[in-house]
Amino acid sequence: MHAAAVFQVRENGGLRLKIRYILPGVLTKTDLGPAEVARRQEKLRGWASPGTYVDVAEVDRGPATIESMYEEYLSVPASAECALRAQKEGFDAAIIGCFGDPGLDALRELCDMLVVGPAGASIAMASGLGHRFSIVTVVPGIVDNMRRLAWDAGAYDKLASVRAVDVSVLEINRGPDAALKRMLEVAAKTIEDDGAQVVVLGCMSMGFLDVAEKMTVELGVPVLNPVRVSLKVAEGLVACGLTHSRRAYLKPRKMAAGMRVEDLLVK
Amino acid sequence: MHAAAVFQVRENGGLRLKIRYILPGVLTKTDLGPAEVARRQEKLRGWASPGTYVDVAEVDRGPATIESMYEEYLSVPASAECALRAQKEGFDAAIIGCFGDPGLDALRELCDMLVVGPAGASIAMASGLGHRFSIVTVVPGIVDNMRRLAWDAGAYDKLASVRAVDVSVLEINRGPDAALKRMLEVAAKTIEDDGAQVVVLGCMSMGFLDVAEKMTVELGVPVLNPVRVSLKVAEGLVACGLTHSRRAYLKPRKMAAGMRVEDLLVK
Amino acid sequence: MHAAAVFQVRENGGLRLKIRYILPGVLTKTDLGPAEVARRQEKLRGWASPGTYVDVAEVDRGPATIESMYEEYLSVPASAECALRAQKEGFDAAIIGCFGDPGLDALRELCDMLVVGPAGASIAMASGLGHRFSIVTVVPGIVDNMRRLAWDAGAYDKLASVRAVDVSVLEINRGPDAALKRMLEVAAKTIEDDGAQVVVLGCMSMGFLDVAEKMTVELGVPVLNPVRVSLKVAEGLVACGLTHSRRAYLKPRKMAAGMRVEDLLVK
Amino acid sequence: MHAAAVFQVRENGGLRLKIRYILPGVLTKTDLGPAEVARRQEKLRGWASPGTYVDVAEVDRGPATIESMYEEYLSVPASAECALRAQKEGFDAAIIGCFGDPGLDALRELCDMLVVGPAGASIAMASGLGHRFSIVTVVPGIVDNMRRLAWDAGAYDKLASVRAVDVSVLEINRGPDAALKRMLEVAAKTIEDDGAQVVVLGCMSMGFLDVAEKMTVELGVPVLNPVRVSLKVAEGLVACGLTHSRRAYLKPRKMAAGMRVEDLLVK
Amino acid sequence: MHAAAVFQVRENGGLRLKIRYILPGVLTKTDLGPAEVARRQEKLRGWASPGTYVDVAEVDRGPATIESMYEEYLSVPASAECALRAQKEGFDAAIIGCFGDPGLDALRELCDMLVVGPAGASIAMASGLGHRFSIVTVVPGIVDNMRRLAWDAGAYDKLASVRAVDVSVLEINRGPDAALKRMLEVAAKTIEDDGAQVVVLGCMSMGFLDVAEKMTVELGVPVLNPVRVSLKVAEGLVACGLTHSRRAYLKPRKMAAGMRVEDLLVK
Amino acid sequence: MHAAAVFQVRENGGLRLKIRYILPGVLTKTDLGPAEVARRQEKLRGWASPGTYVDVAEVDRGPATIESMYEEYLSVPASAECALRAQKEGFDAAIIGCFGDPGLDALRELCDMLVVGPAGASIAMASGLGHRFSIVTVVPGIVDNMRRLAWDAGAYDKLASVRAVDVSVLEINRGPDAALKRMLEVAAKTIEDDGAQVVVLGCMSMGFLDVAEKMTVELGVPVLNPVRVSLKVAEGLVACGLTHSRRAYLKPRKMAAGMRVEDLLVK
Repeated sequence: MHAAAVFQVRENGGLRLKIRYILPGVLTKTDLGPAEVARRQEKLRGWASPGTYVDVAEVDRGPATIESMYEEYLSVPASAECALRAQKEGFDAAIIGCFGDPGLDALRELCDMLVVGPAGASIAMASGLGHRFSIVTVVPGIVDNMRRLAWDAGAYDKLASVRAVDVSVLEINRGPDAALKRMLEVAAKTIEDDGAQVVVLGCMSMGFLDVAEKMTVELGVPVLNPVRVSLKVAEGLVACGLTHSRRAYLKPRKMAAGMRVEDLLVK
Repeated sequence: MHAAAVFQVRENGGLRLKIRYILPGVLTKTDLGPAEVARRQEKLRGWASPGTYVDVAEVDRGPATIESMYEEYLSVPASAECALRAQKEGFDAAIIGCFGDPGLDALRELCDMLVVGPAGASIAMASGLGHRFSIVTVVPGIVDNMRRLAWDAGAYDKLASVRAVDVSVLEINRGPDAALKRMLEVAAKTIEDDGAQVVVLGCMSMGFLDVAEKMTVELGVPVLNPVRVSLKVAEGLVACGLTHSRRAYLKPRKMAAGMRVEDLLVK
Repeated sequence: MHAAAVFQVRENGGLRLKIRYILPGVLTKTDLGPAEVARRQEKLRGWASPGTYVDVAEVDRGPATIESMYEEYLSVPASAECALRAQKEGFDAAIIGCFGDPGLDALRELCDMLVVGPAGASIAMASGLGHRFSIVTVVPGIVDNMRRLAWDAGAYDKLASVRAVDVSVLEINRGPDAALKRMLEVAAKTIEDDGAQVVVLGCMSMGFLDVAEKMTVELGVPVLNPVRVSLKVAEGLVACGLTHSRRAYLKPRKMAAGMRVEDLLVK
Repeated sequence: MHAAAVFQVRENGGLRLKIRYILPGVLTKTDLGPAEVARRQEKLRGWASPGTYVDVAEVDRGPATIESMYEEYLSVPASAECALRAQKEGFDAAIIGCFGDPGLDALRELCDMLVVGPAGASIAMASGLGHRFSIVTVVPGIVDNMRRLAWDAGAYDKLASVRAVDVSVLEINRGPDAALKRMLEVAAKTIEDDGAQVVVLGCMSMGFLDVAEKMTVELGVPVLNPVRVSLKVAEGLVACGLTHSRRAYLKPRKMAAGMRVEDLLVK
Repeated sequence: MHAAAVFQVRENGGLRLKIRYILPGVLTKTDLGPAEVARRQEKLRGWASPGTYVDVAEVDRGPATIESMYEEYLSVPASAECALRAQKEGFDAAIIGCFGDPGLDALRELCDMLVVGPAGASIAMASGLGHRFSIVTVVPGIVDNMRRLAWDAGAYDKLASVRAVDVSVLEINRGPDAALKRMLEVAAKTIEDDGAQVVVLGCMSMGFLDVAEKMTVELGVPVLNPVRVSLKVAEGLVACGLTHSRRAYLKPRKMAAGMRVEDLLVK
Repeated sequence: MHAAAVFQVRENGGLRLKIRYILPGVLTKTDLGPAEVARRQEKLRGWASPGTYVDVAEVDRGPATIESMYEEYLSVPASAECALRAQKEGFDAAIIGCFGDPGLDALRELCDMLVVGPAGASIAMASGLGHRFSIVTVVPGIVDNMRRLAWDAGAYDKLASVRAVDVSVLEINRGPDAALKRMLEVAAKTIEDDGAQVVVLGCMSMGFLDVAEKMTVELGVPVLNPVRVSLKVAEGLVACGLTHSRRAYLKPRKMAAGMRVEDLLVK
């Protein structure tokens, strides 16, 4: 039923792994500015394995932050360009820097290089640490999408709940202490009221607060930092020579017939 | 858990229903040209109920046709603008003219006006006519997305299969007889091999071929034309004063805080 | 695996649609009397599209009202006769006037004419307006059957809850204001406690109270009137030339072999 | 959410168990005649445990045999009367003598005495003997209902398939050898093609052929005779003092308020 | 896909049924001592049908009681030896005397004789008495395993909840009155808060308290004693000549090739 | 509902990760001998990240190879001792060296140190690379257990199929070329007939053949080596300071009350 899949195992033998973290929103144009992007790149480098080179690339246009499905869609075209550039530059994998995994299937259609979505990666890892997990995310408007992401990841039956702290992405960055307090409160509810045994932080800005370990101790259940987990999943898959299946994510038919990606959008 | 929902029942009493069919691809810029768009509008008007005004609006930029997830995403920003314009012009509902329902959740976030996705509408109607239905669509690259759409519609357990005729959208328009022959072959397989009792045509160009009735007779099971069915679902919901739930599709947080929709994309 | 299906597409072109609403209980023999039946027919005519003729036919024997599974079964033989008569009189569709969809599969076996069940139709429409819906019905004894109806409709995964107002059908008719108050209370619980984003009124008498629009405004989520929605679904399907699949609802084997329907019951 | 449940544990201590097998069709009025009913009673007595008294009661009106959903519904009113009579006569349990479990929920609403449906009982036992079971039944028209019965029994995920031998009930009784040959062929398909590890005979006339043991040897998987299994389940539940839950099957509201069962049908 | 299944229908015609109840923990080495084992055997004999011989055999090594998954695993090797001995001695069935069904699949691989697990048997029977059941068990550490057992039994969708009384197995035996009080409290919660319509006691020591009938009256829903129900299921299956499917539980490959069971463990 | 969880985040900062691979069968006592164990340790070291120390420890008693559920259970007590020893020696994680994940829940109850099961890890990673995956394993007797493992991993809905090559574990080791040929044949069937988009090798001996990469190229879909993938998952989780949830895997009650693990088995 599927067109013939063209597939190449990547040779990463002794080479260094190169992973690009795509920022699908224009963080530098918010009041957080370029310093925050630099800070995030440093965090990532601190979390990377010895053999891994990781950098951050921001899209040239997109939403300031992603707090709705509409903003998710707005981020995709530039993220796709960003991923294709990474592939051209010889990267082994790209991580989409938004927990909604916006455009994951599209980026995988376009790239032979592995593309990792943080929700997919975190949900897969959370499923392995207990029988039921919950997601603590930022705003109510994306809660239902996270249920769908759990289904996409094939782990819907293990999802105890998704709860939102109801704090915007920028506020989280501006007031990390208040954010942590609120995250602890809401995570405690998922454990006590919903039966969660594992908690996933459902927002990359939450991940860069670097509080998952503290929350793990405080709450007595594993709390997953989606940034760190995505990086480890990307490293692990590349190390095993694995990428997404071309049977699942076919190259767009027009491109398979020779059209250039930039000609798919007709203006 | 959700922000307060602002919701108004629309008063359509004695008024005429106004429905806009959004073409999310730039059909006029393909060799089918404006004539095809006009032909589609005539078809729709022929299918509309006496009290319904329906017209077609094409996006100003977008993919030529939609045959991959990437092209689905490419279509969303202009479709969203198109839907907002329809709302401003007093339309009661908009139909997204692509069976992938691209951006449905986003358009619903943005609009108080009802937005209908053909996959959602057709799957809901198909579920009510038998115990198992199949979707016959165009190309293999979108088959897995249709499984997800069946889940989104809450009807995954009734989905017998999704099969692709493996013919491009433009070819379907150019060679309707060959397309029909192929559609019959593939639909027969869904019935004989997969146990389908109802068949949904999973592509709007298939719908505008206007062959569902002929296929119904030929195959002995109901075959749903997604264009016609979407129109009826839109008419029916508007007549009942119903629109999508604001508890399910929240207005983007930044817009609720006063930001204009056109400022969500930062360049 | 299935016997050959005999299937004819109905020609409704320029013709008027004729829809019969079957009252499966003997309302005229309760203290509500014939006036209530006449009132319901007027309501239906007010809700019908310009091109639709709709009338109400009451069974000649049956339960006074339907508030248990046993009463559902009691209603089926006379409803079936009623549906067959409608078909003979050239109607395009029949609606079973009870939210339990009693005997839906049997009536579909007997008739080539479309038969619509209000639960099936309402659940299908509700599924398309949000991610989770609840049903608010009359008495506790039919709550579990409604879960089964949600499964039959293929939408079990989207069902948030079924709650009963615990008021009998006749009381609802006699005290509409008290009924509305109670319905609002219970519906609010489905929203706040169960996460419902859409509410379906699970009783036709609730539908004829004509309060769904008011409830929609009050509660801030779409509330579906099953009478009105069934009528729209019937109109829409007939307009598209669609009826239930003969692969799903086979003509009884003895009738296919020539026996008359009235001879199936041996006394 | 439920009305107060009235519930009494039955005292069967040293007493003999009394079980009534209800024939919901008028077998004596077919060419099989009263001899077949007597033969079935003898079979049941041969299968009963030492402490069990079992007899057969035929309804006074009903379908000749049950091969469609319509005929299932036709059988319910007289079956219900039959069950109530058994309860009045002091029986401990009644078995509905049709694999479609017609009216099971209704009979349970009416009776405090245990009512057993053969599909429910057989599916429960089959689920415990392997990971996937199939049902081999008579005619295609009831195949989809058996899927629903598997769901009702809570065992849908273990159902490998339902297949019909496409032979009528009367033909099975008239030509047992041909029937057995066909049943073996179809059962073999469920094993080889559908992965069944256990087979359930989905028709009581198949059960009275008394061939399940022979089929078990022939096919190398357990084959369940629904008559015998229902009898054992009924004996076992009564022995444990168990009956169906009044929280699941509430007494009809009108009867709880004092109305007699025979007044529920208004003529 | 499966190796050829060797399968023999057991002939139990006029013979007495012989059932062995395996105690997988060394109860005699706790302070309850041999008296408790004798008491349990008497209980079983009181519950057995006239034609059934039942006795109890304790393993020669194992956990004192089973309150964790680790202890479940510890019990399996000796239980397996015990089951094989029963088979050799001509027993028709063995019941594993722990509600966790420890090693059920392994014992079934080894034995042609029927092996019954109490969880499997009780869940199957509970599923047939209502739409949703709950399990009340001893300690929190085995709650999640019971969810898995409900899935294994194919009845996950009917499971309302599993709750633990949080009292150890030995305490239950030492303080039956306090245990009953606590069991009633927790069972009431499953009914009121979780919607259970049927309750299963999820511990064999609870079963031997012989309080299910009292709880049934007190709570107004059927409460299943897993000991008694397992015995009835074993009796019923043996009476029907049924045992577990060899397609589901294959004889270990090495044994099929001639190796003795005692040589499978290499020291 | 759960006892208080005692939980400590492990500090692995600049330290080297130490991972122990537990061989739950006594490979050295088969004709493969100690050389094979040494070869496997070398493979693991080749696959480990720069910062990881990995070694192999074989149990002192157990099955020669694991090809049935009974052998799985036989392996658990010694594996548990092995895991506890690793924890005492300061290892950060243990991997159970059998794809059946035998005793995973028990080992997690006993250890605070992370314990990884290869099935769980591989299924989680496979779920993230496509929409449907299949498992290719050794012998038919463990096929159904792998379906359960997919459910345990929360990925049952993404499982396309489990197929066995029907070759014993020792034969795979003795004839790697024949084994590879057979694995390719069976894997091709899962792709062509079952719709698999990703393939998991469901046996550790298959993993140590080191052919997943070759199969990936040959078949055009990602093929997962469970050894390598488990190692990467263990490395990743430890690096993130994560271990299994103590809310999901409680310390055995008797140990929480002070009993030593070696006293749980009473002889």
